[in-house]
Amino acid sequence: MPLSLYSDEQYMREALKQARYALAEDEIPIGAVVVLDKRIIARAYNQTERLQDVTAHAEMLALTAAANHLGNKYLQECMLYVTVEPCVMCAGASAWAQVRRVVFGAPEPKFGYRRHGRLLHPKAEVVSGVLAAESEELMREFFAQKRK
Amino acid sequence: MPLSLYSDEQYMREALKQARYALAEDEIPIGAVVVLDKRIIARAYNQTERLQDVTAHAEMLALTAAANHLGNKYLQECMLYVTVEPCVMCAGASAWAQVRRVVFGAPEPKFGYRRHGRLLHPKAEVVSGVLAAESEELMREFFAQKRK
Repeated sequence: MPLSLYSDEQYMREALKQARYALAEDEIPIGAVVVLDKRIIARAYNQTERLQDVTAHAEMLALTAAANHLGNKYLQECMLYVTVEPCVMCAGASAWAQVRRVVFGAPEPKFGYRRHGRLLHPKAEVVSGVLAAESEELMREFFAQKRK
Repeated sequence: MPLSLYSDEQYMREALKQARYALAEDEIPIGAVVVLDKRIIARAYNQTERLQDVTAHAEMLALTAAANHLGNKYLQECMLYVTVEPCVMCAGASAWAQVRRVVFGAPEPKFGYRRHGRLLHPKAEVVSGVLAAESEELMREFFAQKRK
């Protein structure tokens, strides 16, 4: 059976590409895309170092870009793909935007939102663990470089 | 006894000024300032409608402006004043920025971060209720206008 053209894995691969751009710029390698009607309408990667701004997480930049694209701050029909479990800030932003489906890769036990309970929108569907190994490998690579 | 020149009330009055700018632009009237060494280094008000961006809360804009001003994403010596209890997103952002003192006015039982536990930085001092009545009055005025 061929992989569906519109699978979670496919969109997560696009988010992983973004994460690799972050890695190449010495940023913590996290990437995100926003999907509407099977099309990617926003792509972003973590830029907290370049911008010297803690709010410049991949998810935040992607949500803002998606809202700019649509001219609407509510993203009720959108899906957010992100390579790592979102933090509290990004979970809160996706709740405000009413993102209807959040798909993430690697779990983040320390900085992920889940240890604080359900912070996403009450109606949001959540899928975790998609291509988690690829995402974790990027994170490992980043922190291994840093330790050198 | 004269009021100290550097009181929480004084800085909160500056945040309330920002909130009034929001009200004048038909935004939910919330304002924020960031203070370092007794000086205000950033001021902002909620612009979620104008920018059509859920991430454009007063606190987020003020934290980004403060980081830009300092050229440093960490605001460990800074104090954040905001007229209403921060939401989960803004609490998370202030935690990442390591803001050392968060002072807010009115409580926000529904959308405030506190019902999710302690989301601010572990070392952050929190002061609540400063000029809360003024802040609540602005919020009441906004929602009364909206109902008309």
